[in-house]
Amino acid sequence: MKAVRFSRFGRASEVAELVEIPEPAQPGPGEVLIEVEVAPINPSDLLHFEGRYAQPASLPAFAGAGVLGRVARLGTDVQHLKPDDRVIVVNTQRRAWCDRFVWSAARLIPLPEADPVDLALLAANPPTALLMLERFGDLRPGEWVMQNAANSSVGVSLIQIAKTMNLRTVNMVRRQHLVDHLAAFGADVTLIDGPDLRARVAEAVGGGRIKLGIDAIAGDATRRMANCLADGGTVVTYGLLSGKPCEVDAADIVFRDISLRGFWYSRWFSTADPAAIKSLFARLVGMLQAKTLRVPVEASYPIEKLTEALAHAQREGRVGKVVMRWTR
Amino acid sequence: MKAVRFSRFGRASEVAELVEIPEPAQPGPGEVLIEVEVAPINPSDLLHFEGRYAQPASLPAFAGAGVLGRVARLGTDVQHLKPDDRVIVVNTQRRAWCDRFVWSAARLIPLPEADPVDLALLAANPPTALLMLERFGDLRPGEWVMQNAANSSVGVSLIQIAKTMNLRTVNMVRRQHLVDHLAAFGADVTLIDGPDLRARVAEAVGGGRIKLGIDAIAGDATRRMANCLADGGTVVTYGLLSGKPCEVDAADIVFRDISLRGFWYSRWFSTADPAAIKSLFARLVGMLQAKTLRVPVEASYPIEKLTEALAHAQREGRVGKVVMRWTR
Repeated sequence: MKAVRFSRFGRASEVAELVEIPEPAQPGPGEVLIEVEVAPINPSDLLHFEGRYAQPASLPAFAGAGVLGRVARLGTDVQHLKPDDRVIVVNTQRRAWCDRFVWSAARLIPLPEADPVDLALLAANPPTALLMLERFGDLRPGEWVMQNAANSSVGVSLIQIAKTMNLRTVNMVRRQHLVDHLAAFGADVTLIDGPDLRARVAEAVGGGRIKLGIDAIAGDATRRMANCLADGGTVVTYGLLSGKPCEVDAADIVFRDISLRGFWYSRWFSTADPAAIKSLFARLVGMLQAKTLRVPVEASYPIEKLTEALAHAQREGRVGKVVMRWTR
Repeated sequence: MKAVRFSRFGRASEVAELVEIPEPAQPGPGEVLIEVEVAPINPSDLLHFEGRYAQPASLPAFAGAGVLGRVARLGTDVQHLKPDDRVIVVNTQRRAWCDRFVWSAARLIPLPEADPVDLALLAANPPTALLMLERFGDLRPGEWVMQNAANSSVGVSLIQIAKTMNLRTVNMVRRQHLVDHLAAFGADVTLIDGPDLRARVAEAVGGGRIKLGIDAIAGDATRRMANCLADGGTVVTYGLLSGKPCEVDAADIVFRDISLRGFWYSRWFSTADPAAIKSLFARLVGMLQAKTLRVPVEASYPIEKLTEALAHAQREGRVGKVVMRWTR
């Protein structure tokens, strides 16, 4: 069967290979065999190929975390799934980009029938946005949240999910054309990140206090965001896009009681109560069905066009997800 | 009466002046008139003259926060104090370096008779150390706490107070001669801050997990400290000695769940319940009397030698506090 592998660290499109590997073993007790259907390409996947994601892999290594698949075979002691159920799997060993793999059934939730690409997009970005909005900042209806890299898939998910919670969003982007793009998702305020941000944000939110900042970039972007928050506010960093350490002005930390926290979806997913995962996906599927949540797709490639798909995912200025699909 | 004033921002010893100003008004309801006895010079005082502490003052400005004084006169509605009581005052308006001032009685606690310099040293540094140890990191007996600028008065206080709580300390300093100096206060481990810190700290604590780091420096020092903490650990920044933004590796924040928080003693003091303040000073006075806590004094100057006192406090490599005293 086919699997995505790499033997040296580098840009994904240059180091990823589609190779033949042996079929997986049979699923054991409490396990299922998953047939992969759709895999969105996330920034964390690209960092994994570069050796910049969590612990660098031992080479050669496989790749891929969040995918949509079907249950192809059940091991013993699996009661809540049946063959052909569609499930999202967060493969914390990062070896999900392959035809089939065996995984613990404990955190797999059967999803309703729907467009498989739409379902696959729920694997990582919308749940990351929802969990950060709920777990930090103690936000109440009408309050403001701020984010950078707002045109990412987490970003557009956050705008829409915030709206369902009656929260208002201040969105930082790097290019003017994205302002209209985000308005179409319901962004309340969108600004170009850069100098004088604090004054521009203060003007845009009137007397609003921003208690939560969601940071995908780190480096100096964290500092600028912290400057904009109300006293006692929290910056939550979940991405490493700049490759630089988070910076926060010491005066903001000491005198204004700003906190810096982190969120890692993989850790949440691998330790969460299965009931919490079930509730999370039920809510997100509900938003999909109510059309209050959509994640734009820029391109879909068959897995055989792996290199093209990765090169597309690496392009600056994308406004939608790149996904890979398996056809049988 | 005399007061310390400055008309431009700069090094304290160059801009501070001892000037004559009118006597304060009579204490109103709930207020007392304080006669100042002893004032330790803290790093925050020096930053205040430089315009780098919290909100820069409107010039010309007065100076001085934590002092020991005697109650000289009571306003109406003050039940818990009597004339001649010794009290620590944290003058959050930073105008305590003068002969007399009026202050709210609510958070003033009568202290036992003891050496006035010893009592004055309790004004800011030991309570800062105690509060940070208790309010962050959820430390249990036998666990480790790490700090930098460990030879500061907060630092030596923290070493001794940690010992009374059966906590163990890893202390970062910049000079070799301070290693023996801190051992005399009960430091468990003292290391020179710099490269390879994570490996050196890991070796020094054996299998110990460090859940709390106490950071007075900010900048890259915050990053090195965060590297040394166990997953889920907290860095608390309370000082701004480097003048640089706090840095923390984004991977530590996201993948290792390291948090960055701040602590500001002035805010705690001006909002704390008076019973909490009373309990805090009772415990610290108890430690003084039991000789489990001592804060070294390097020099004591009469207030008339203000410039010399400030110049001494600015010297690198001090190992004790500089205090100013009023004699009448």
